[in-house]
Amino acid sequence: MKPILVFQTDFTYKEGAVSSMYGVVKSVDRELEIMDGTHELPQYDTWSASYRLWQSLPFWPEGTIYVSVVDPGVGTERRACVVKTSDGHYVVSPDNGSLTHVKRFIGIEAVRMIDESVNRLRGKGTEEVAIFHGRDLFGYTAARLASGIISFEGVGPEYPVEEIVEHPILEPVIGPGKVRGVFEINDPNFGNLWTNIPLRAFREAGFEYGDMIHTVVCRHGEPVFDKTVLFHQSFGFAEKGAPMIYNNELMKVAMAVSQGNFCEQYNLGYGPQWSVEFTKD
Amino acid sequence: MKPILVFQTDFTYKEGAVSSMYGVVKSVDRELEIMDGTHELPQYDTWSASYRLWQSLPFWPEGTIYVSVVDPGVGTERRACVVKTSDGHYVVSPDNGSLTHVKRFIGIEAVRMIDESVNRLRGKGTEEVAIFHGRDLFGYTAARLASGIISFEGVGPEYPVEEIVEHPILEPVIGPGKVRGVFEINDPNFGNLWTNIPLRAFREAGFEYGDMIHTVVCRHGEPVFDKTVLFHQSFGFAEKGAPMIYNNELMKVAMAVSQGNFCEQYNLGYGPQWSVEFTKD
Amino acid sequence: MKPILVFQTDFTYKEGAVSSMYGVVKSVDRELEIMDGTHELPQYDTWSASYRLWQSLPFWPEGTIYVSVVDPGVGTERRACVVKTSDGHYVVSPDNGSLTHVKRFIGIEAVRMIDESVNRLRGKGTEEVAIFHGRDLFGYTAARLASGIISFEGVGPEYPVEEIVEHPILEPVIGPGKVRGVFEINDPNFGNLWTNIPLRAFREAGFEYGDMIHTVVCRHGEPVFDKTVLFHQSFGFAEKGAPMIYNNELMKVAMAVSQGNFCEQYNLGYGPQWSVEFTKD
Repeated sequence: MKPILVFQTDFTYKEGAVSSMYGVVKSVDRELEIMDGTHELPQYDTWSASYRLWQSLPFWPEGTIYVSVVDPGVGTERRACVVKTSDGHYVVSPDNGSLTHVKRFIGIEAVRMIDESVNRLRGKGTEEVAIFHGRDLFGYTAARLASGIISFEGVGPEYPVEEIVEHPILEPVIGPGKVRGVFEINDPNFGNLWTNIPLRAFREAGFEYGDMIHTVVCRHGEPVFDKTVLFHQSFGFAEKGAPMIYNNELMKVAMAVSQGNFCEQYNLGYGPQWSVEFTKD
Repeated sequence: MKPILVFQTDFTYKEGAVSSMYGVVKSVDRELEIMDGTHELPQYDTWSASYRLWQSLPFWPEGTIYVSVVDPGVGTERRACVVKTSDGHYVVSPDNGSLTHVKRFIGIEAVRMIDESVNRLRGKGTEEVAIFHGRDLFGYTAARLASGIISFEGVGPEYPVEEIVEHPILEPVIGPGKVRGVFEINDPNFGNLWTNIPLRAFREAGFEYGDMIHTVVCRHGEPVFDKTVLFHQSFGFAEKGAPMIYNNELMKVAMAVSQGNFCEQYNLGYGPQWSVEFTKD
Repeated sequence: MKPILVFQTDFTYKEGAVSSMYGVVKSVDRELEIMDGTHELPQYDTWSASYRLWQSLPFWPEGTIYVSVVDPGVGTERRACVVKTSDGHYVVSPDNGSLTHVKRFIGIEAVRMIDESVNRLRGKGTEEVAIFHGRDLFGYTAARLASGIISFEGVGPEYPVEEIVEHPILEPVIGPGKVRGVFEINDPNFGNLWTNIPLRAFREAGFEYGDMIHTVVCRHGEPVFDKTVLFHQSFGFAEKGAPMIYNNELMKVAMAVSQGNFCEQYNLGYGPQWSVEFTKD
């Protein structure tokens, strides 16, 4: 069977962009299977693109081609590329930070720049369009690769993996009975915040399920949340409406409100300015 | 052909959860066909999960496996199960009220508890994750069932259908020229409200298309809407912006504003506290 | 292979309507392939339906059946139809203005009215439902057509293409160094506005990439935006947060804010009341 194509973008489904992009894929090869990753990434946010890619890609079968299009620099000099990961997946994306987590935590075997003279949609009045590479470049190239029309080598010239653009990633500070990290991303649906602290490190620092943990969240160094909070396996162990610390689906320490919205209830967010410190009482 | 998998959850497509879940399905069996039911159920709302399941399931081919994940109790003692309906569909869901309507109005032939020692995703650092059964348990088990890796018996031990958790369902009061019910759910997109009154009962009470009907909506017993309203087959029979009574897609009496939003225009909602009474003038 | 079915509606995915509609398709023929065009068209807005159809349809393979359901007149006298385009696509839709752009800019070879006595879902209590033709009529008929159960002739009686309902389409006024048009639609996600001015005409009027162009937007004739704005190929050529003029994916002149939201930043919208005039300084 031909590889699956999974798409993640910041296009939303509000108008006809996704449909046009998928139509191009199907016009390249009617047999190709398309799956939605998500089309609701925060606009222009290559950090989120990178994080969501890393979060989801490992669960897909080997050979899957993931197309990620968050592309504030579309039509400018940023590279358009296809990478082959150490796990045998392909990612088609602008090289603009969207590959940070895949490069760091999964590994990239090789990267090739898309050769627009070959791998770009022609006709239908698209030649002069510079603002929709999801349709004209990324989707089209991914479809050709999935279909076997081109091999990975046929994407375009290879360039050094070291040159792939990366966002900085902050590391947590782990000590006995005390761990400090940042909220590096959220669960925008349920309003949870995910730290950069691995469960394993948290445990090594001495924290266990059932502990009440002194938790201080700062924004730009100013405390905005200071409470003693339950750490447990799942939301149902806390009272409805109460904040809690849990182990998220990526085995990192995270915070939620049981059947509520942690971000909204305490007016919190994520990014380098949002630090969180856990201390054993 | 292998059965179709249809998914409904309260995850939204805002981040990578749906993609991870679908990737697991495709990793179990590349051939399986996945369809979105909806990922926009109201959060933690097992009543809506139950209602939407009942609303949609009957239209799918026999053998279809519907996966429903609204799961506020994930990781706690609530059962995870697979049911076989009297119509020959399967539903994979937490047993938390989400099966109320299917049990009551379609019929459940048998229910089995998912045996996590067999039917749970292993590897990729998922073993200790207690908060994402959509990915690790429900999606995975549904995929194994659809693929034929396990039979229904292979899901896990059977338990009595009577033990399946149910929400209470309110019945309407029908008399000649007078019907009282509740708004039991909405159409959140168009702002319509759906009562628990079957069209057949409404007619037996004497109401016909073209009637102007005295309609009183109460919240907690207090009248909040009191008007004479047209009852007709479809929205186009009322003037644009006018409220109307119609027969919804499930053959129940419902209310709308023609090309408008009934809930917003009159500040109404649904649930046991929202009664509605129709009287012949 | 059987043709692909692509759906665009104003139903959203918030409840069970799309799932029911797709279930009907799959019950007609398990093999049919369904793709989401979009289910987030603005409610009751047949202009948007028409525009998005024209925007996306040309990118799909010949034979593709596009189902468009924005249907404020559902259950009334408006015709339900299937058209065959000059490009070899089919569109299944209410004949209510939704076919304006396809008729004008692609061309319609023939149109047939859906014969409800044959091509309407029976059973499951749907006979008396007058408000959900997406499920009971359009989806069902499209599935039968895709499956080969009926031919195009089997849809129902033909009627003259000239009778297809159209919205008026405004034409721009082009002169040397001066072009006036309207914002005819938006990109609701990124907040861009798309004019009715083709790039070719804009160039013939003397405008080139890199020009700073005097731009006046009026609402009902009153100026609400008056600035000199950069015209360039893509967003990245403007400073972040600055307005710009660009060539959109349909080769029309459009306006955006680089990495921002043009509509929100300047409180602008689209429709016949929103004129825009570009003048060479």
